Amino acid sequence: MAKKLRIGVIGTGKIGRLHLESVLHHIGNAEVVHVADPYMSDEVRQWLRENGVNKLSENASAIMEDPEVEAVMICSPTTLHAEQLVEAAKAGKHIFCEKPVHFDLEKILETLQVVKQSGVKFQIGFNRRFDHNFKRVREEVSSGKIGEPHVVKITSRDPAPPPVGYLKTSGGIFMDQMIHDFDMIRYLSGKEVTSVYARGTVRIDPVIGELGDVDTALVSLEFEDGTLGVIDNSRQAVYGYDQRAEVFGSKGCCIADNDSDTRVSVLVEGGVTTDTPPYFFLQRYFFAYVEEMKSFVNSVLNDTEPVCSYYDAILPVVIAKAAKQSLEENRPIKTEDILSMQRIQEFLA
Amino acid sequence: MAKKLRIGVIGTGKIGRLHLESVLHHIGNAEVVHVADPYMSDEVRQWLRENGVNKLSENASAIMEDPEVEAVMICSPTTLHAEQLVEAAKAGKHIFCEKPVHFDLEKILETLQVVKQSGVKFQIGFNRRFDHNFKRVREEVSSGKIGEPHVVKITSRDPAPPPVGYLKTSGGIFMDQMIHDFDMIRYLSGKEVTSVYARGTVRIDPVIGELGDVDTALVSLEFEDGTLGVIDNSRQAVYGYDQRAEVFGSKGCCIADNDSDTRVSVLVEGGVTTDTPPYFFLQRYFFAYVEEMKSFVNSVLNDTEPVCSYYDAILPVVIAKAAKQSLEENRPIKTEDILSMQRIQEFLA
Amino acid sequence: MAKKLRIGVIGTGKIGRLHLESVLHHIGNAEVVHVADPYMSDEVRQWLRENGVNKLSENASAIMEDPEVEAVMICSPTTLHAEQLVEAAKAGKHIFCEKPVHFDLEKILETLQVVKQSGVKFQIGFNRRFDHNFKRVREEVSSGKIGEPHVVKITSRDPAPPPVGYLKTSGGIFMDQMIHDFDMIRYLSGKEVTSVYARGTVRIDPVIGELGDVDTALVSLEFEDGTLGVIDNSRQAVYGYDQRAEVFGSKGCCIADNDSDTRVSVLVEGGVTTDTPPYFFLQRYFFAYVEEMKSFVNSVLNDTEPVCSYYDAILPVVIAKAAKQSLEENRPIKTEDILSMQRIQEFLA
Amino acid sequence: MAKKLRIGVIGTGKIGRLHLESVLHHIGNAEVVHVADPYMSDEVRQWLRENGVNKLSENASAIMEDPEVEAVMICSPTTLHAEQLVEAAKAGKHIFCEKPVHFDLEKILETLQVVKQSGVKFQIGFNRRFDHNFKRVREEVSSGKIGEPHVVKITSRDPAPPPVGYLKTSGGIFMDQMIHDFDMIRYLSGKEVTSVYARGTVRIDPVIGELGDVDTALVSLEFEDGTLGVIDNSRQAVYGYDQRAEVFGSKGCCIADNDSDTRVSVLVEGGVTTDTPPYFFLQRYFFAYVEEMKSFVNSVLNDTEPVCSYYDAILPVVIAKAAKQSLEENRPIKTEDILSMQRIQEFLA
Repeated sequence: MAKKLRIGVIGTGKIGRLHLESVLHHIGNAEVVHVADPYMSDEVRQWLRENGVNKLSENASAIMEDPEVEAVMICSPTTLHAEQLVEAAKAGKHIFCEKPVHFDLEKILETLQVVKQSGVKFQIGFNRRFDHNFKRVREEVSSGKIGEPHVVKITSRDPAPPPVGYLKTSGGIFMDQMIHDFDMIRYLSGKEVTSVYARGTVRIDPVIGELGDVDTALVSLEFEDGTLGVIDNSRQAVYGYDQRAEVFGSKGCCIADNDSDTRVSVLVEGGVTTDTPPYFFLQRYFFAYVEEMKSFVNSVLNDTEPVCSYYDAILPVVIAKAAKQSLEENRPIKTEDILSMQRIQEFLA
Repeated sequence: MAKKLRIGVIGTGKIGRLHLESVLHHIGNAEVVHVADPYMSDEVRQWLRENGVNKLSENASAIMEDPEVEAVMICSPTTLHAEQLVEAAKAGKHIFCEKPVHFDLEKILETLQVVKQSGVKFQIGFNRRFDHNFKRVREEVSSGKIGEPHVVKITSRDPAPPPVGYLKTSGGIFMDQMIHDFDMIRYLSGKEVTSVYARGTVRIDPVIGELGDVDTALVSLEFEDGTLGVIDNSRQAVYGYDQRAEVFGSKGCCIADNDSDTRVSVLVEGGVTTDTPPYFFLQRYFFAYVEEMKSFVNSVLNDTEPVCSYYDAILPVVIAKAAKQSLEENRPIKTEDILSMQRIQEFLA
Repeated sequence: MAKKLRIGVIGTGKIGRLHLESVLHHIGNAEVVHVADPYMSDEVRQWLRENGVNKLSENASAIMEDPEVEAVMICSPTTLHAEQLVEAAKAGKHIFCEKPVHFDLEKILETLQVVKQSGVKFQIGFNRRFDHNFKRVREEVSSGKIGEPHVVKITSRDPAPPPVGYLKTSGGIFMDQMIHDFDMIRYLSGKEVTSVYARGTVRIDPVIGELGDVDTALVSLEFEDGTLGVIDNSRQAVYGYDQRAEVFGSKGCCIADNDSDTRVSVLVEGGVTTDTPPYFFLQRYFFAYVEEMKSFVNSVLNDTEPVCSYYDAILPVVIAKAAKQSLEENRPIKTEDILSMQRIQEFLA
Repeated sequence: MAKKLRIGVIGTGKIGRLHLESVLHHIGNAEVVHVADPYMSDEVRQWLRENGVNKLSENASAIMEDPEVEAVMICSPTTLHAEQLVEAAKAGKHIFCEKPVHFDLEKILETLQVVKQSGVKFQIGFNRRFDHNFKRVREEVSSGKIGEPHVVKITSRDPAPPPVGYLKTSGGIFMDQMIHDFDMIRYLSGKEVTSVYARGTVRIDPVIGELGDVDTALVSLEFEDGTLGVIDNSRQAVYGYDQRAEVFGSKGCCIADNDSDTRVSVLVEGGVTTDTPPYFFLQRYFFAYVEEMKSFVNSVLNDTEPVCSYYDAILPVVIAKAAKQSLEENRPIKTEDILSMQRIQEFLA
């Protein structure tokens, strides 16, 4: 039988269980051998046992010390990521880590420096890169079919705002929601962002404003070669989870429209009705999560570069910070003024 | 200045005025010089004069005898077509004639024999051949892009039944409505129909049944080389004028969907709404009528074969009669048993 | 923990493994406890063991006699279905059985009579009823949104013909391929077919003709209340697995278009390109198979009627036989002349 | 007969002939009585005569002095607009004037002050407001169906750059191309723009850069109530004239996609192909031009407010100037700093 990657999972919250589901049922060449969570529910415990996972620990360190574990999936709260990344790297475990590494850029750099030097594989969790639609757009752009990109556009709207409790510690719309799009616009264009100008407004819920955050935001971006970009986010699109992208180039344009549950049209007097986009992120991105994990497993087993790694763990945070500052100061901000590419390169050298 | 074809128009009913509008305002190389109608309204009279048409007659013969007229458009009631076709042919006028030539096949043959022998151009009014969508399907089929046709499908549904008075003399659904599709299926496939099996039912208005007619019909057809076809008609699609076609072949499939007034989508909770197909035949086919007339004018001026001519004036009537008999006798009917291709060829020799 | 239905699976061919995959990984309230197949491969054996299935037998009888098994999934070759159905029913096991029960109608009736009288749940495997698109069409029709159905149309084209070896024992295009559509057209319309007229032709591969079969077929159908239907099948649509349906009614029309892998459009000079339909039936129908099995499990656990049961196991076979006879005799055939509804009712009384 | 508005047309260039065609052939309640152009071609002269227009002058003043003329259409070069506007207003003629009134804002104010005080109707030529798609979006927004607008997006790409000669005097991409979108975004949102931030780049033709202009531009906008907007322009979309818009609001989203010549899809191995957007602006907007003129004629005949008038002649120019300055200074510019709304109101009081 082919080699299976032996994985330890840290954290059994929503995202942890999602990745567990992926590995347990959708990925042939990986297996879960150890799961750690200080607050693991009985239900999760039982589900894991039924699926043949018997090593269940409270402490992440148990996984780090487990010689059977070859790779860890860090799905703990963000505040623990940096410490666990270092611990895992030192233990020689390959690492898949949910985004972000940390909210503080210096801390991110320090942490990743350690990981980099350890020589383990490192993948950061930007799942949307593995979405069928966006992946296809990237492939079309890479293939040269639409020529040199001139303008890249992303629309990304949640179906409803998260709970206030979540918003309080979310880091704000740029760090929490648009960070996915900052990564996506780098991925789709294949280029780095040099400058951003952000506008935001509170239109959905005044409570969001009271938290010092905005619920509607539009950021225009400029890339190293002059390519232009724009991202618009909303915390509430009542018709569903609106996730679209477009790359316009010298030879054409590639557009990713929304998915929908069915391809059924109803023609009646007054209009033709079709489905709205899927409402939940899991409906839209479940298979993207599976593909993300497959990609990580394969990069470890085949010793190839992860699709999403060090720069991807750093640069979207840089852009998010630039966007936040731009919104506050109502002026364009250079990403270089947040953190220079040279410094990143030095850290990762 | 380029040569303009001088046209005389017989009949100023709905279809006559439509063709007048085409020639007066949309066709550069033709002009209306004479219009005849025993019942021409004052409004039409004035409209024609404002557009520079000053020869207005009551009698079609005035047009036949007018040496200025080079071509006639016969838009009179069907019962007068045969006689006027013969008269026009003998007067050496090129002829565009609305469908059908006659309800009686023998009479059609006799009439067209005279027209054929006169050597004038003759075009029959199957306007849908000039529709942007269907023409494109034909082009794709002709180009070989979808390979050899295997199955041809047409859906053709009116938005509402015509008035009972009209239905009484319409000749029934096959002769009145589906005859367009019988022509279209020959046009799209580039092949002749050899056998039909028709089913029909009364679902829209019992009055239609009382007239001995059906309002919903489905006809399966077989072509000379075994290609299969199907046409479904309804007298009432409440959402608009539903006009679609599909040719499936060895290398692919070509599908013509409905037009719509706009390309606007409205996404709200519960669904995405877009436009229904246009409701009126003029919205859908106005430019097809213009193109039809341009094609006729060009075939006269350039001495080329009209797109729609003798066989097209005869064969859809043959298929309609076979369909009617099939419905009545609940069995497949060979078109050869209605009128043999050999006899048609002899007449048109 | 909630009750789980304990399932025994007979047959580990393509369809058997598919259902095993469903129950093992996608259905929460069922578990596989026993699998039987005289020719089980080592690979399957190991896969089952890894998934916690330890009772592996050669003989289906082992499952029938296993008191732990509450329900069986009969995925053996068609020739064994009838016998295993009777055996399972007598053993008091609930039954999910792949279609068809048998090629012989009398044998079907006899078999199902035994099953019916045993009182176990019985579901026949028409998976497409559980497809997201077709299910939605059925819901829209049932809801009355499009009014009373007038015309029902199904297009169903395979991406490529099956191997000749398979075709030889397939029972012909009506029994093997179009039988799904005969079930579907009953499901979508909610009505029974009374008469069919079938045409077929050999356009894809002459070998299919040499087997006495056709590869392209078009069947027009009439329902009990005069509703009209049409199904067209092809053994080869080079652009993928073409699966569409349409119900046209007094208040509107409901159309199910094809799925596609992505929602990406590429606009370049000369055209806009989007994805073809998925090529393999598993891409299109995998989740329909899962939903089918969920539905069966729930009907057993909740003691409700299966969505697809006795009449659905019989009537598509009746229509397929009528279609075959119609093709051979080139005349419409009444389903009543194949097998009367009254006889079916008597058997199932 | 109903009253017809008697129109004099100044200028027979491309846009003048287009409006002449509209009035001559598509508008029932207007007639062309006088046309002036110092450089009228023989071809145009003959075409006008054939259409019953016999008063042909070299000098625009001849039209101003013609008592038969009730309304003028100013289609002369931009440099003559202001002078002719004043002359026409003083002569008591209603005015339709092509955009822009002038490149200088002070001159625009002065001119429009005279026109306003004269009491004649004044319409400025933003034809896209009358486009079927954009008009529908505006209707949906006005109706409240999508709730309060939060984000408005416009994509507007030409199929190919205009000739260098034209570009030299065009006023730059913001004044020449994006000015349509500045008007459109005000129209779709029903709100005024308060701030813009513009980025631009030269990606299509270095010659454009040498002229001090850009060929690719992206402008983010902020409205009086915080609503956010974005417009992206390109001088060259090789796949056609790309004209789309989207209004996202509290209750939904309204999206206008591109038109296309046909609704035909070709499904072959490797992809489904449909039409690109129409290539020429006349294909896309011809009927918008007709509707624009109908609207003007009706506003005169029925004494109603023109859809596009004084503010619309001024504000897009203000935004264009702000965009140009923003691009040059790489900072957001307030429209108030270009020209205050109060000053506009004072002039038009």
